Amino acid sequence: MRVTKGFLIAAFALLSTAGISFASEPAVYDPLSSLIDVQKYARAIHIMAMLLMGFGFLMVFVRKYGRSAITATYLLVSIAIPLYFLKDSLGFMGGVDSDIDRLILAEFGAASLLICAGAVLGRLKMGQYMLLGLLFVPFYALNEWILLEGGFGLVEHGCFVDTGGSIVIHAFGALFGLGVAASMTTKKEFETPIEADATSDRFSLLGSMVLWVFWPSFCGALVAPADIPATVVNVIIALCGSTLATYAASLKLRGKVGVADIANAALAGGVAIGSTCDQVSPLIAFTIGILAGGLSTFGFAVIQDRFQAAIKKIDTCGVLYLHGLPGLFGGLVAMLTVGGISQVDQLKGIGITIIIAIVSGLIVGKILSLTGRRAEPYTDDEELLID
Amino acid sequence: MRVTKGFLIAAFALLSTAGISFASEPAVYDPLSSLIDVQKYARAIHIMAMLLMGFGFLMVFVRKYGRSAITATYLLVSIAIPLYFLKDSLGFMGGVDSDIDRLILAEFGAASLLICAGAVLGRLKMGQYMLLGLLFVPFYALNEWILLEGGFGLVEHGCFVDTGGSIVIHAFGALFGLGVAASMTTKKEFETPIEADATSDRFSLLGSMVLWVFWPSFCGALVAPADIPATVVNVIIALCGSTLATYAASLKLRGKVGVADIANAALAGGVAIGSTCDQVSPLIAFTIGILAGGLSTFGFAVIQDRFQAAIKKIDTCGVLYLHGLPGLFGGLVAMLTVGGISQVDQLKGIGITIIIAIVSGLIVGKILSLTGRRAEPYTDDEELLID
Amino acid sequence: MRVTKGFLIAAFALLSTAGISFASEPAVYDPLSSLIDVQKYARAIHIMAMLLMGFGFLMVFVRKYGRSAITATYLLVSIAIPLYFLKDSLGFMGGVDSDIDRLILAEFGAASLLICAGAVLGRLKMGQYMLLGLLFVPFYALNEWILLEGGFGLVEHGCFVDTGGSIVIHAFGALFGLGVAASMTTKKEFETPIEADATSDRFSLLGSMVLWVFWPSFCGALVAPADIPATVVNVIIALCGSTLATYAASLKLRGKVGVADIANAALAGGVAIGSTCDQVSPLIAFTIGILAGGLSTFGFAVIQDRFQAAIKKIDTCGVLYLHGLPGLFGGLVAMLTVGGISQVDQLKGIGITIIIAIVSGLIVGKILSLTGRRAEPYTDDEELLID
Repeated sequence: MRVTKGFLIAAFALLSTAGISFASEPAVYDPLSSLIDVQKYARAIHIMAMLLMGFGFLMVFVRKYGRSAITATYLLVSIAIPLYFLKDSLGFMGGVDSDIDRLILAEFGAASLLICAGAVLGRLKMGQYMLLGLLFVPFYALNEWILLEGGFGLVEHGCFVDTGGSIVIHAFGALFGLGVAASMTTKKEFETPIEADATSDRFSLLGSMVLWVFWPSFCGALVAPADIPATVVNVIIALCGSTLATYAASLKLRGKVGVADIANAALAGGVAIGSTCDQVSPLIAFTIGILAGGLSTFGFAVIQDRFQAAIKKIDTCGVLYLHGLPGLFGGLVAMLTVGGISQVDQLKGIGITIIIAIVSGLIVGKILSLTGRRAEPYTDDEELLID
Repeated sequence: MRVTKGFLIAAFALLSTAGISFASEPAVYDPLSSLIDVQKYARAIHIMAMLLMGFGFLMVFVRKYGRSAITATYLLVSIAIPLYFLKDSLGFMGGVDSDIDRLILAEFGAASLLICAGAVLGRLKMGQYMLLGLLFVPFYALNEWILLEGGFGLVEHGCFVDTGGSIVIHAFGALFGLGVAASMTTKKEFETPIEADATSDRFSLLGSMVLWVFWPSFCGALVAPADIPATVVNVIIALCGSTLATYAASLKLRGKVGVADIANAALAGGVAIGSTCDQVSPLIAFTIGILAGGLSTFGFAVIQDRFQAAIKKIDTCGVLYLHGLPGLFGGLVAMLTVGGISQVDQLKGIGITIIIAIVSGLIVGKILSLTGRRAEPYTDDEELLID
Repeated sequence: MRVTKGFLIAAFALLSTAGISFASEPAVYDPLSSLIDVQKYARAIHIMAMLLMGFGFLMVFVRKYGRSAITATYLLVSIAIPLYFLKDSLGFMGGVDSDIDRLILAEFGAASLLICAGAVLGRLKMGQYMLLGLLFVPFYALNEWILLEGGFGLVEHGCFVDTGGSIVIHAFGALFGLGVAASMTTKKEFETPIEADATSDRFSLLGSMVLWVFWPSFCGALVAPADIPATVVNVIIALCGSTLATYAASLKLRGKVGVADIANAALAGGVAIGSTCDQVSPLIAFTIGILAGGLSTFGFAVIQDRFQAAIKKIDTCGVLYLHGLPGLFGGLVAMLTVGGISQVDQLKGIGITIIIAIVSGLIVGKILSLTGRRAEPYTDDEELLID
């Protein structure tokens, strides 16, 4: 409670300070550019649907924690968007002129935060999700600034290829989340099974479909109008590829088809095509999708249990297998498929992301662990008033 | 049944009469203006998603009445849109030239009707929802015409500030609904608890998220392209503010977080920013959102039980606390935040809305009460054929 | 499993062959035409929402088969879109220049396939859905080519009126599905009741609403910008008409209102207005909607049980009554409502569709029946790994 009030006061104070620079830029009266902005706005709304209905309901698969997962999603988005918006308005570590571009960048940050939170879903208190959001956004913005804006001169500006955020958004969020999970998995949590049922599965599949449907708007959000059609086709074809590959791999590896594989790994094509969505042919996109779907399903079906048993940590939503590995794969595959790419900058960007994400995740996890523990993991009734 | 057939015949007869003027205007071949219309159309579809999936599923929180709530939503929308469209085509109490503008205005009327119906949800027969729709729309159009079109010369044309409908749509619908509830709450209904469960809660949270996501399109539906970005940012920031404030206030006032508070009060920022969404800075929008979220949660957590006990009437969805109070707050706050506003016209508009809504709601409630009562409130099986 | 791997290898091989022609056309730099394409893209995303969340969740009404219905939807879409895209890129039986137009046409094909699959839902193995998709698309493309592109010179190019696909998409898919069902209904399946419950009903109503909301984008997907407003208004008014008529007819014919009638027949106005959505006045659209809703409800309430008992075959989702009869009605009504229509070509097109759909459906059903049978119909656990 005190944490929440503190957040509101701090946010308010910061926004007050920001005052003038936080005001929107004077409206542009060039009619064509206004229309382009309104089209970007439609994509921004699609991304918002992904953040709330998509990520939110995908996480409802935890049978007894669905209402908490939704509440946490609401809070994470409501922390991340104003915070990133404020950062960008003030010009810390980059900053754009357009309100709509800034909103979309803020949504990207919120998406990465939601991915991160998926790793520790059900094991944080509500106040801890909010604190996580407050601590995550600065590190996210730092990494984004280094990779995409040439921050500190580490990666040459404009040379890192990642249009739809395979690395900057997906891999960063997943690896940060694993860092947090290192401190936020108790023995009791490790031993508590994460249960789903027919209804939680159907809600989760609904979230999955919302993500699938609007993914082209995510990848194409800031793409120029003339490049939208090719980008969109690539994203859809990649998703078709990963969906088919997930079915085949799940059946092969498990004997039957896992519902969670379908809900999750089917999306891996969207994760992996992010880096190159506006650069490759549909054929390459289909291939990337198939490989990403297979890789992700292999992660869920084969790696997850062994890895968790080995490190005694839990990644609740398996974000390593949906966002981590397919994201890294997508960033690496750009080196083979994009003509004239700077291999050095691409590798440097990926390496920097891995380091910043894991180190800052470990730090943030340690901070969170100092603010207490839930009594029971994965249950709604600890913090929610159940009717 | 007879009611329904009567509706169809009457609607048909009216539409036949309308004949010529109901035909769409000749297509405009100015390419830029066509593109602007198509962009408005995308927002009109977003609003339709709010009406059906948003309002519809938000009302599914009533455990045993979910399928009826959805059916009623379908019927209310299907009555209100053609009826408003017809009224506007005929030029009764105003009327616009553009098909898309007319559609959006009709959707606004349907939104206000759904809010109104939320006050008596579960206590009307299906035919009564339809009759409610038929009677509501003329009063809604009358109030809209007085406030926004200078009808009767009561409020100077163009001087009442309410872009996103805090007063005209939200407060009007909520107060009208309270008027109806005055006649449509029996002793038995008053004593029957309104029950939710884990699944009905999750559906309700889904509806809530649909409303949250598309709210910027609702507020910005008729805003000029150049003002869309600033409007959208304000609406999203306001919703973030009310979401955070709802969490904090619910925890403070109830000891735990109420799921229904999250599903409802988190949206109060959208309700309250309506009047001023294209006029204020993001800082003001955030403040309005925080205050609206706190006010709405206070309404649900503190006022609702006492007020209902005092007047022995039920407001099923608590529309007074989500739409009524935050709507009035939004209309009033315009007087402090919009430069050069006519304080007199703003106050007159708010006062007129309160009077028309309550008086006409009382009249319509009395008429509805003459057409019979349900045997049991809040149950699907009285009117639906359950599999 | 082998089927799946075979699919992936075949698809990949085909795509490799396609190589060059499958690459997207060079980006067009005419700013206005780019903006028009981006607007089409927004409609393409709406259609994708209909395919996955709409058709997918509408089919979740089968209580114990919900997760399978969603999985099947994912697989059917992921087969149909790349396959149609490939066909069109290679210029087999027609082919367009624009990536976005091609994507929308591929989505139309996927919609028709999902309708078809609805007839045998719960009675195919997952691999059989995929095989169905692979076999359906060529026949669908053949019929589309004959009706809309003047293929074989059977119908004069441009003379068959079917903007929103009442015949080409809806009637074709439904009749094809009935053909498949002729071979894919065992005695055991015929005798097994198809059960729904409160939760599966609510998911199904959600799918229904997604379809209702985005239907205008489906019908208007390829309509010129200047004609979008009138088209959209017609579609919405037609849906309002069918929703009201469904309520009235269901109550009249069944004594109470059937939830499945509301979920399904309410959409019949969208099916039937397809052929003429950009050609008629709102008054005609309302009339078409009312008649289609009544016809569809009559089908579900009166014809379905008798017809199924007579032929001993099951149409799981009742696609004949939602898509078949209303689609044919919509195609026929064009002959009365569209000025200057070629009655001969319209009738020829409808007749050809009926013949191709039924004959090819029978053939494909026979092929599918050779690939095995499920042990139990309508259950998730036969092929899915249930948590």
